Amino acid sequence: MALIVQKYGGTSVGSIDRIRNVAERVAKFKMLGHQVVVVVSAMSGETNRLIGLAKEINKDPDPREMDVLLSTGEQVTIALLTMALKDLGLKAKSYTGWQIPMSTDSAHTKARIEHIDDSAMRADLEQGYVVVVAGFQGIDANNDITTLGRGGSDTTGVAMAAAIKADECQIYTDVDGVYTTDPRIVPEARKLDTITFEEMMELASLGSKVLQIRSVEFAGKYKVKLRVLSSFEDEGEGTLITFEEDSMEQPIITGIAFNRDEAKLTILGVPDKPGVAGHIVAPIADANIDVDMIVQNIGVDGTTDFSFTVHRSEMKKAMEVLEMVKSAIGARDVKGDDKIAKVSIVGVGMRTHAGVASTMFKALAAENINIKMISTSEIKISVIVEDKYMELAVRALHQAFELDKEPSAA
Amino acid sequence: MALIVQKYGGTSVGSIDRIRNVAERVAKFKMLGHQVVVVVSAMSGETNRLIGLAKEINKDPDPREMDVLLSTGEQVTIALLTMALKDLGLKAKSYTGWQIPMSTDSAHTKARIEHIDDSAMRADLEQGYVVVVAGFQGIDANNDITTLGRGGSDTTGVAMAAAIKADECQIYTDVDGVYTTDPRIVPEARKLDTITFEEMMELASLGSKVLQIRSVEFAGKYKVKLRVLSSFEDEGEGTLITFEEDSMEQPIITGIAFNRDEAKLTILGVPDKPGVAGHIVAPIADANIDVDMIVQNIGVDGTTDFSFTVHRSEMKKAMEVLEMVKSAIGARDVKGDDKIAKVSIVGVGMRTHAGVASTMFKALAAENINIKMISTSEIKISVIVEDKYMELAVRALHQAFELDKEPSAA
Repeated sequence: MALIVQKYGGTSVGSIDRIRNVAERVAKFKMLGHQVVVVVSAMSGETNRLIGLAKEINKDPDPREMDVLLSTGEQVTIALLTMALKDLGLKAKSYTGWQIPMSTDSAHTKARIEHIDDSAMRADLEQGYVVVVAGFQGIDANNDITTLGRGGSDTTGVAMAAAIKADECQIYTDVDGVYTTDPRIVPEARKLDTITFEEMMELASLGSKVLQIRSVEFAGKYKVKLRVLSSFEDEGEGTLITFEEDSMEQPIITGIAFNRDEAKLTILGVPDKPGVAGHIVAPIADANIDVDMIVQNIGVDGTTDFSFTVHRSEMKKAMEVLEMVKSAIGARDVKGDDKIAKVSIVGVGMRTHAGVASTMFKALAAENINIKMISTSEIKISVIVEDKYMELAVRALHQAFELDKEPSAA
Repeated sequence: MALIVQKYGGTSVGSIDRIRNVAERVAKFKMLGHQVVVVVSAMSGETNRLIGLAKEINKDPDPREMDVLLSTGEQVTIALLTMALKDLGLKAKSYTGWQIPMSTDSAHTKARIEHIDDSAMRADLEQGYVVVVAGFQGIDANNDITTLGRGGSDTTGVAMAAAIKADECQIYTDVDGVYTTDPRIVPEARKLDTITFEEMMELASLGSKVLQIRSVEFAGKYKVKLRVLSSFEDEGEGTLITFEEDSMEQPIITGIAFNRDEAKLTILGVPDKPGVAGHIVAPIADANIDVDMIVQNIGVDGTTDFSFTVHRSEMKKAMEVLEMVKSAIGARDVKGDDKIAKVSIVGVGMRTHAGVASTMFKALAAENINIKMISTSEIKISVIVEDKYMELAVRALHQAFELDKEPSAA
């Protein structure tokens, strides 16, 4: 007998029929003798409907009241799912965030979990109940309802699993696991049986939308065994997210992420002296523009070129800031390029294998794809290429690292 | 400066525009220096939508989960109204039932209020906040969400007014007050400036849908000054519901109620001996059929006829029960009639005026309307007439008692 936390997203509970399917899946686990805690999101579309109502009143609605409003979405789902479980003859009981209680700080609309009291849930589990928990919501020290922000139901699932020391946290979604890359771009993309937390963090932050990044951090911190599965398929083990220590020999590269949401800005002929990077980045940060990659080359003639990427929608604003910075620091010119894409290879194996970067650059060169910018971390290499080459670059890299093949034990 | 509780029903908060209107009305009272507690229902249609979802799962959904589900309706409204109030520059704060807390018993879907803790609300009021309260919902001793049943928002409003000792409880609805009868049937029907609690009780239970009967009982018990007003008109004082002691000389008759939802059942030739009424009514009650009027005539030949009315939809079921009763007690025959209507005149003045019944019966006779059944209480006389005469009977009585004229001080 295991203690399992299952989390179902908005699409998985998007209609009464789907809620029934979830109830049947839960019933199967219960029949196998497991204890089950189910964490659910709002029915798909509901959160946006509620946000729409609030924005009709004020574009920037009061955050406390926003949380009162949005938390109703998950509350509807827990009631309906619990009814469906009881309809199957199971014992089941719903919990709102405040009923658990799940304590958070008071940062409305983006609260952080502080403590989960598992005593009531545990008593119910021991009496054979399926415990159905509203994701995304908590209660703060003022007795006010809080929400964790978008994707917070994943985080609730993982935090719940950590609090009750579950054997596994299963995240059900509309994909059947984590893939080496997007199968819509590379048909040979392969579902991974396992992926490390660190890889998952890099892939998630690079735009793979399978899991919310904060839930992965949480799982890593509390060593929660996390599995991503499809709620629309009955078979399949999904993808298990592991700690590196647990894993067998790793493949060099695990997956390829990409996105075309960014724009590249370059400030040319910057006087090459200490502190200049700060003079450039600080005003960008002050303008509330998030910076992703930053690259600076060593200068040759007493000046240097400084490049960074921002979200494409903020390029214009960033250019305006840089024009002011240019005069202030005596740089030569400012250039912006929004016809770019970022392609990243991720894998814990690259730490111990030389030549990964070389394989990557050669594969791109073989397709005549020019690299405009490079940045690297321990387990990731990202390149900026011309927008129109993005899919080609992903396919070339997928093949070069033989991601379509099952990794052989080394 | 007064402390006012205002209650707005589902139609009054049925859209964002209407919520804005409510906010503006509240703002006016606030500007006049009053303290305001606002109790709201779910947006019109929302409760039915939620019930529809639950019934898709099970025709008889789990009551605890039903309350979790339905309470979201009012929670959405309090958030949106509070946002709208803040948008007007007012200080405002929303309260769910459990945040107040409003304690109830554990009778899910029809809970009764046990206690309202007014300390948090009172502190907010004293700091200048408009307090926005979700109607219809509470919390029981198990920390479970409860609801008061349909119309429970009126009851919440009155209970809140009693708890915080409000100067007045204003119930805003889609009519501008209580009328002598339905203006759709009698165009001369007149809005009453005042009506006594007892009259209101009789009129409400007879089918006037202005106020929920339990809220009137509550107001009477705790001596809450209750006023019914229209949320769609800016002018008008509505109808104030008074205690008889407060009132000036009463008119004899205050209003006329009617409904055609009932059916009449008669069991003929019942042996006239003690206990026989119980033998007839008990099996009807056991079958969960509500009985309204009961009439039994004194027998002439050792037998008697026993008549009563039930909701029209339950006539068939009641007839089946009576057929069994007939054999058991040795009665002669059973008859059912669903082509009937009930017309009632109500007025505290009839206590002290002889001849009210006589005026009523004469007025009906003048129109050749045959009376099939009569029952009376302290302040009400009800008659059953043939269905097709209902409107005619109401009009004849409205004229006979001169209800279109303002009552003159006696």
